[in-house]
Amino acid sequence: VPRTHFHLQLEQLKDKLLAMAALSQQAVEYAVDAYLERDERLCTFVRENEAAINMAHRNVDEMAYELLAKEQPMAIDLRFILSVIKINADLERIGDQSMSIALRAEEMLRVPAATLPVDIAAMGTHASDMIRRAVQSLIEADAPLAESVREMDDDIDHMNRTAHVDLIQVMQKSPDASLQALNAVITARNLERIADHATNIATDVIFWVRGADVRHQLAMAE
Amino acid sequence: VPRTHFHLQLEQLKDKLLAMAALSQQAVEYAVDAYLERDERLCTFVRENEAAINMAHRNVDEMAYELLAKEQPMAIDLRFILSVIKINADLERIGDQSMSIALRAEEMLRVPAATLPVDIAAMGTHASDMIRRAVQSLIEADAPLAESVREMDDDIDHMNRTAHVDLIQVMQKSPDASLQALNAVITARNLERIADHATNIATDVIFWVRGADVRHQLAMAE
Repeated sequence: VPRTHFHLQLEQLKDKLLAMAALSQQAVEYAVDAYLERDERLCTFVRENEAAINMAHRNVDEMAYELLAKEQPMAIDLRFILSVIKINADLERIGDQSMSIALRAEEMLRVPAATLPVDIAAMGTHASDMIRRAVQSLIEADAPLAESVREMDDDIDHMNRTAHVDLIQVMQKSPDASLQALNAVITARNLERIADHATNIATDVIFWVRGADVRHQLAMAE
Repeated sequence: VPRTHFHLQLEQLKDKLLAMAALSQQAVEYAVDAYLERDERLCTFVRENEAAINMAHRNVDEMAYELLAKEQPMAIDLRFILSVIKINADLERIGDQSMSIALRAEEMLRVPAATLPVDIAAMGTHASDMIRRAVQSLIEADAPLAESVREMDDDIDHMNRTAHVDLIQVMQKSPDASLQALNAVITARNLERIADHATNIATDVIFWVRGADVRHQLAMAE
């Protein structure tokens, strides 16, 4: 019976983590929309969301610590709880990166719109897809799905590098648009970092599902 | 006798973490020097150092996981091992940020030097001091020293914001220097993120030394 209670608590921990994931994913989507639509209210929303994310982050962490301290779990359960702690940290950092995008969006409100050679919408969708799949792979303990997230990372790295080069050209040729171009460079970098965090989450899911040896192999292959 | 053996292993874990910290701190210092002195060999060194950091990161993580699985530690020892896992992750990210600085330094080698309104040397020294103190507070289990690191974070945030504003002016007025200015913006941001990681490490040291309740208070005060 105590094991049953323990496994109920593990389910609760997972639910808390999924709520945290929902907040982080929402932060990314709202921050990108705020940036694209020049929407001040969405910027404010992302700020308020950030406080909710920080509270959810502490909640998950505290529950994970309590389970480790009281239940002394072994093997797969221990791996699961340690993965939750790591995934939780990545989700919190996704929130930080979204805040950074919202701050750039706020700065953009004060200057005219500029047409720039970067598809922030596509990068945002790609990053958001990666988080969604990583979370799905966690819910379903689906290692192949988690692997597909890792494969998606190259595309957004490429988008970011291309944007970086193209936006430098804008700065050099159109100094009037340099503030807008700088904010686009930073936003593209933030989205690339968000994708890195989604990749970390996917790696932790694989570690949880398959065990430490595979994690080591993955690390070796990087 | 088994507890003695366990505490010896905890000491070994700490030593491994300190070696990891030394690599990360070196990465920051070499990356900043590479940037300031336009030194290609230092860029290469940071790249190679990155591989060593990733290996040290996995080593620490694996030992921490093993101790959790085999020893089922309680209270202060559990808190210590969980802090090591978190500090290790922050040190690894300090390595990532240093790599990003080295990449900007490499790009700078291909363009003329420009005099810019940003003191990267001062920011680098400040960030490096924060890491050094955070590691010192870990070695000596010194919570007040860790708190002093948290207080140092405001200064570098301020430096970064000032640099951001001043460098936008450069981009707008001197488009020929916009690539150099962009790289300076990104490097200043990287150093500010490195300082954030040092702050996280200091917070984890306080959590380890004083316990979860204080960590919660700190979080509330943020």
